[in-house]
Amino acid sequence: MEKRISLNGVWHFREVNAGEWYEGEVPGCVQLDLIRLGKIEDPYYRMNEIKFHKLEEKEWVYKKEFDFNAKNKNEYDAIKLVFEGIDTFADIYLNGIHLGKVQNMFIPYEFDIKDIVKDGNNVLEVHFDSITKTIKAMEQTSPVKLEWSGESGRPYIRKAQYSFGWDWGPRIVQVGLWRGAYLSLVKYAEIKNPYFYTEKIENDRAYVVVSADIERYVHGDFEAEVELIEKDISIIKTRTKVEKNRIDLRIKVDNPKLWYPNGLGDQHLYEIKIKLLKDAEILDEKSFRSGIRTIRLIREKDEEGESFIFEINGVKVFAKGANWIPADNLLPRLSKEGYYEYIRLAKEANMNMLRIWGGGIYEDRAFYEACDEMGIMVWQDFMYACAEYPDQFEWFQKLAEEEAEKVILSLRNHPSIVLWCGNNENNWGFHSWWNNKDPKYLGNYIYKEILPKVCAKLDPSRPYWVSSPYGGEDPNSETEGDRHQWNVWSGWVDYDEYKKDRGRFLSEFGFQAMPDWKTVLSYTAPEDRKILSPVMISHNKMVEGMERLIRFMVGRLGFPKDLKSFVYLSQFNQAEAIKTGVEHWRLRKFKTSGTLYWQFNDCWPVASWSAVDYYKREKALYYYSKRFYAKILPYIKEENEGITIYGISDFVHDKEAEMTIKVFKLNGEKIAEKQLKARLIANDVTKIAYYSFGDLNIGYSVKEMPIAIPGCTLPMEKNRELLNSVVYVEIITDDAVYENYKVFDKFRNLNLIEPKINYQIKNDLIVLTTDVPAFGVFIETENDIDLSDNCLNMMPGKEYEVKFSQKPESVEVFDITQLAAII
Amino acid sequence: MEKRISLNGVWHFREVNAGEWYEGEVPGCVQLDLIRLGKIEDPYYRMNEIKFHKLEEKEWVYKKEFDFNAKNKNEYDAIKLVFEGIDTFADIYLNGIHLGKVQNMFIPYEFDIKDIVKDGNNVLEVHFDSITKTIKAMEQTSPVKLEWSGESGRPYIRKAQYSFGWDWGPRIVQVGLWRGAYLSLVKYAEIKNPYFYTEKIENDRAYVVVSADIERYVHGDFEAEVELIEKDISIIKTRTKVEKNRIDLRIKVDNPKLWYPNGLGDQHLYEIKIKLLKDAEILDEKSFRSGIRTIRLIREKDEEGESFIFEINGVKVFAKGANWIPADNLLPRLSKEGYYEYIRLAKEANMNMLRIWGGGIYEDRAFYEACDEMGIMVWQDFMYACAEYPDQFEWFQKLAEEEAEKVILSLRNHPSIVLWCGNNENNWGFHSWWNNKDPKYLGNYIYKEILPKVCAKLDPSRPYWVSSPYGGEDPNSETEGDRHQWNVWSGWVDYDEYKKDRGRFLSEFGFQAMPDWKTVLSYTAPEDRKILSPVMISHNKMVEGMERLIRFMVGRLGFPKDLKSFVYLSQFNQAEAIKTGVEHWRLRKFKTSGTLYWQFNDCWPVASWSAVDYYKREKALYYYSKRFYAKILPYIKEENEGITIYGISDFVHDKEAEMTIKVFKLNGEKIAEKQLKARLIANDVTKIAYYSFGDLNIGYSVKEMPIAIPGCTLPMEKNRELLNSVVYVEIITDDAVYENYKVFDKFRNLNLIEPKINYQIKNDLIVLTTDVPAFGVFIETENDIDLSDNCLNMMPGKEYEVKFSQKPESVEVFDITQLAAII
Repeated sequence: MEKRISLNGVWHFREVNAGEWYEGEVPGCVQLDLIRLGKIEDPYYRMNEIKFHKLEEKEWVYKKEFDFNAKNKNEYDAIKLVFEGIDTFADIYLNGIHLGKVQNMFIPYEFDIKDIVKDGNNVLEVHFDSITKTIKAMEQTSPVKLEWSGESGRPYIRKAQYSFGWDWGPRIVQVGLWRGAYLSLVKYAEIKNPYFYTEKIENDRAYVVVSADIERYVHGDFEAEVELIEKDISIIKTRTKVEKNRIDLRIKVDNPKLWYPNGLGDQHLYEIKIKLLKDAEILDEKSFRSGIRTIRLIREKDEEGESFIFEINGVKVFAKGANWIPADNLLPRLSKEGYYEYIRLAKEANMNMLRIWGGGIYEDRAFYEACDEMGIMVWQDFMYACAEYPDQFEWFQKLAEEEAEKVILSLRNHPSIVLWCGNNENNWGFHSWWNNKDPKYLGNYIYKEILPKVCAKLDPSRPYWVSSPYGGEDPNSETEGDRHQWNVWSGWVDYDEYKKDRGRFLSEFGFQAMPDWKTVLSYTAPEDRKILSPVMISHNKMVEGMERLIRFMVGRLGFPKDLKSFVYLSQFNQAEAIKTGVEHWRLRKFKTSGTLYWQFNDCWPVASWSAVDYYKREKALYYYSKRFYAKILPYIKEENEGITIYGISDFVHDKEAEMTIKVFKLNGEKIAEKQLKARLIANDVTKIAYYSFGDLNIGYSVKEMPIAIPGCTLPMEKNRELLNSVVYVEIITDDAVYENYKVFDKFRNLNLIEPKINYQIKNDLIVLTTDVPAFGVFIETENDIDLSDNCLNMMPGKEYEVKFSQKPESVEVFDITQLAAII
Repeated sequence: MEKRISLNGVWHFREVNAGEWYEGEVPGCVQLDLIRLGKIEDPYYRMNEIKFHKLEEKEWVYKKEFDFNAKNKNEYDAIKLVFEGIDTFADIYLNGIHLGKVQNMFIPYEFDIKDIVKDGNNVLEVHFDSITKTIKAMEQTSPVKLEWSGESGRPYIRKAQYSFGWDWGPRIVQVGLWRGAYLSLVKYAEIKNPYFYTEKIENDRAYVVVSADIERYVHGDFEAEVELIEKDISIIKTRTKVEKNRIDLRIKVDNPKLWYPNGLGDQHLYEIKIKLLKDAEILDEKSFRSGIRTIRLIREKDEEGESFIFEINGVKVFAKGANWIPADNLLPRLSKEGYYEYIRLAKEANMNMLRIWGGGIYEDRAFYEACDEMGIMVWQDFMYACAEYPDQFEWFQKLAEEEAEKVILSLRNHPSIVLWCGNNENNWGFHSWWNNKDPKYLGNYIYKEILPKVCAKLDPSRPYWVSSPYGGEDPNSETEGDRHQWNVWSGWVDYDEYKKDRGRFLSEFGFQAMPDWKTVLSYTAPEDRKILSPVMISHNKMVEGMERLIRFMVGRLGFPKDLKSFVYLSQFNQAEAIKTGVEHWRLRKFKTSGTLYWQFNDCWPVASWSAVDYYKREKALYYYSKRFYAKILPYIKEENEGITIYGISDFVHDKEAEMTIKVFKLNGEKIAEKQLKARLIANDVTKIAYYSFGDLNIGYSVKEMPIAIPGCTLPMEKNRELLNSVVYVEIITDDAVYENYKVFDKFRNLNLIEPKINYQIKNDLIVLTTDVPAFGVFIETENDIDLSDNCLNMMPGKEYEVKFSQKPESVEVFDITQLAAII
């Protein structure tokens, strides 16, 4: 039986060798404590980040005094001091005695203090080295020079790699006890490493395994009682002997209630309770939550190469989601409520997967619990990213192995996690950036030897994948494995390129936009509010990120009128870009089996690839995600002088649907309308109808336009009527209405007319109508409220309803025609 | 003796099978004839180009009737019909008799008509096939699929490849007798293929060779008299026997007057006169012009790889110049005067080399004569560009061999030509684009077998080079041979990248700008005058050329206020970009031994990489070229918290120079001035002085700025004083004043102040002064006049004198601060 005494709350801290002690908080970090004390400013305002760079050389001490009743001491068989997370290089002292040195922020550390803890006052001190000085010293004497980005010393430290600066995040080298600390008092025995997983599901019967290790301080025969509880009702209760300090139990569960990803079914969770018994006495008791589900990664040869399909409970799932990065540079201020809010946002955007990217952290348990509850599958990277790592050193191998073990033991019961992945982009780097093929070390020993071995040992329930991207001779191949498509955006290529991409699983692709306008206001002083001001550029961490935003904006939409127009146009462009990619890849279902765009969230207020900004304000991409990730996606493809309508369905049963197709001229005139019924094939793509342009009353008249051919442009004849038309499609099932639209060129080439958009507030709704087709219709309110939808593409004759969380003040509504400058 | 009867002038033409005949002109083409007749509009206005595409399917007949006196017939031993250039696929008929089929626009064709020409009226007809239909047909049945740009069929035709559209030129598939036609009447004998070249020059004595072939119709012994004439004075006269119908004579010339490239010495030319004698009778007489000079391409191993240095008359020459493309898409309208004007412009820009790029034409003789006279060395490509060619066909090999022979025979007497080069970018293509390594055919048989063989046989006087770029395993290597640097611009990389480039000879690199504002007005209607209008985009033939112009403009200067600002800012940016490259490479003299920027001229009014636009209006780059190609280039390099001043001299003797260095704040305050004397080493780079910023009274104060590091940007502290300073340097020799300036960041980051620029008109000068440092100062006049300088970078306290060709009307003067929009 374990009892815990928290050491969280008020500590004291000071710079090493400085006089005065200040109050600090645990969990916390130096940076947050200094901000709280008013000794340093908000790092996210203007270029204050630079002030935090100057902290890096310093060393810090955190001190906690606590009383301990010596009587307790003999009552317990073991007394341990446990830190759930220390960031990063630190020496721990209790009552002046050195307990040890730590060097990995990702794992808990525990120290046996039974002989050291005193009756009465105890003094616990944690001395933090300067991270920057330490890694620079390590780098200096290292026999290998490692590739890296941002900070050359970062491969030497097991610390969140993004904290040294990334192309979407500042350099803030957090120092401190970023997770909790407690005393662990154990009597007799303790159940450790409980584990629950599903071996298989057959004929409405699940075969599950329950196991655990027993740490014991008393002799004798132990038994364990294992109970499965579903919604407070005990389903199964069974007993087993403890042998070799371990329990290992196979259980059949009849008519199990399965855990499904969002959109595929419910997220049933079971409570698993383990009691450790000696005779009738309960020595320890642990309970935890998990789910019954199988996961298989289907990798089978096919005509394009090899598939890469997640199959959950025997059902193939097209993964719809995004990449997750740490949601702050000052991690301790993230809350459970915040995590639940993020995951709720993902769920409401019809996502079913997030990838926890390898340059961040193994997330807070709240993250995984929320994912378990809301059906968000987790692609879990190990924390190695965009660098070579010094795994020719035995000490680094040990760090990696220890980290993998502790991470897997702590996370393996979450049904949401569906994949362990060795790293982010390092194998792609070996092949394509650093020109060292497939080396034995430089990280590869970890990804190809240590991690698969530890995964196989501690978690037989999930696949392991070497890297993201991986698969094929070129790890970023289109023919097998997962793929990061960065020609678009990073390679300056415009987003039509997505339509040529035959990747099997797009685990990264992205397109930047500015954050919400209110967020821009939050990090700028009035004099910074110019598109190319130093502060504005500083809040786009990508080298030449602003130049790309502009390049793609003028390529598609034209010049912005001003900074605010720039913000909104960038968001519309981003949303259209990712829409183009996702729709193309969903149409290839299951040749392509997933799209995780880069990136879901931000770690500070910044122009980035995110859908939701640092303040959880939704960008246009977020609202678009709800549509392009919906269970049914109507898709309009131009081909053979007409259009083909496809219905892409993620339903597991066929669906009867009604469909309406309308064609408008851009002046608002409706020139065609078609109605039909269709049966959408389950979990597949259905070709529904073809209409020639003639069928749709789209005539022909000549407009000469410059058209790109290989090597140059030539003026050619285009159909002016097409440039003046929009096709709108609506699929109606018993569940809902799904819609989409198609225009036939870049927006800057269309004959757009400034719309008259009317809106009315009715109860908790803003109801909007337009006289002509209107694109990128933004609703802006003075107060900071949530809207159920935004960045609408509106057709005449239809009411658009947007729900608000709070009464909107000073509503403004505008579309892209009002944002572009005609110069 | 040959006598010629011109067939130039009025012909008649019509579409095949059409009724009416129209008047046409020879030399000329269908397109020009149709324009002249008012049957088609100016192709360069708006998108009229498209109208010319529609001509491509048509077939045409050109007809000339001429009288011939049959008495003449027997007076001559041979009667030939000669076409100097037929474009391209044609059948020739005389009096209804088929003389032959032709298929190479680059070579003259001659037909023996002695038995066909009639007394009295003769009817000559040239039937032109549709080029597009023919090459499409050839392509269709070809066993290989060839790589290409623009038009997939173009490798099958020996026609100027740019005529099918390029990233700076329209698709206008010219058809017609583009060069002259005549009857050649030969009696007794004719001197053919006269040749003059310098074998070596030693101790003020040149060893030259004179040779020729004799075509004879009479028996007997012939002699030849060879005379060298310099400025109408006979220098040498000597006789030789004609043996085996050939003369071949080695002549020693004492104290020869050598031909030098511009800047290195004078361009002495000799007239060489050959008389063919039988006894005392002159059977034929030919005279031509050439020069005495040696050329060696120094390719020697060194620590960076292998040098690539042109050596003329024993002196190493840093090649300063640009690439030449055909100066029109309708070639017959180019005039001798026009060619001389272009070459004069090159000379006045202190150039000494032009490269005739392989996608155009072997130029008009006026071009080479102007180069001979003005000292512009010519890098002569053979006409193969950016494609694979079908040289596995024997017929194509023969075409290539015949072409090479005729071209070399016609051009080899021009001293200006210093190199034969096999093609443009095709070997780079094999290696880096088309992934076929170093194939036997696909063009390589021509470049590696046919051309070197023909060059060795017919022109031992010049080096042959396989391709541009070539040298090294990667033909575009930095370590040997010549190099095309297109990461900048095409690869979206900004021009600071030039400073990292260690190419040995930069035969291509470039940066686009808009043409002159008057030129923009010329090709647009008022409604087209928006930066992103279809017509504006159509007059930038590069795919996403406008996006690049904008991307680089915002990266360096900011947003343009309007279209006119866009024009001027783009020109300033281009000039600064090429300046950066050239200065860096000149500083590496002779590690780098030449910079030929892309491109000197235009073939139509267009936004392109040119320095001089289609109407010969100079862009900012042209004026900058005068400065960065001057014989002495002062260079200011920032290093070690200060600046080093270098003097790069192309003089062949050491030069004593006086130097002034001034430092201004951007508000106009002069904060430092230094005077010194220096000796500039001949044909080398001299390090003259180092000054710390302290020496220059440039203080230090902090400005926080986002700075790029690998992978992201970080805010860092920069010296605000540097961002507020400009260093100006002037080197004065007995010859002239050479100047340069240095600012310490991108212009958009500088603390620029809008200047007050005063100007006065004094005689034929505009004299300008400014109150604060002013950059990119443009003088615009309403009337279309020539100015001796423009796009000035002006310092306070100095008068800038600009000479005009005609009294300027409505002068406007503005600098970049007046062009950028602050949004």
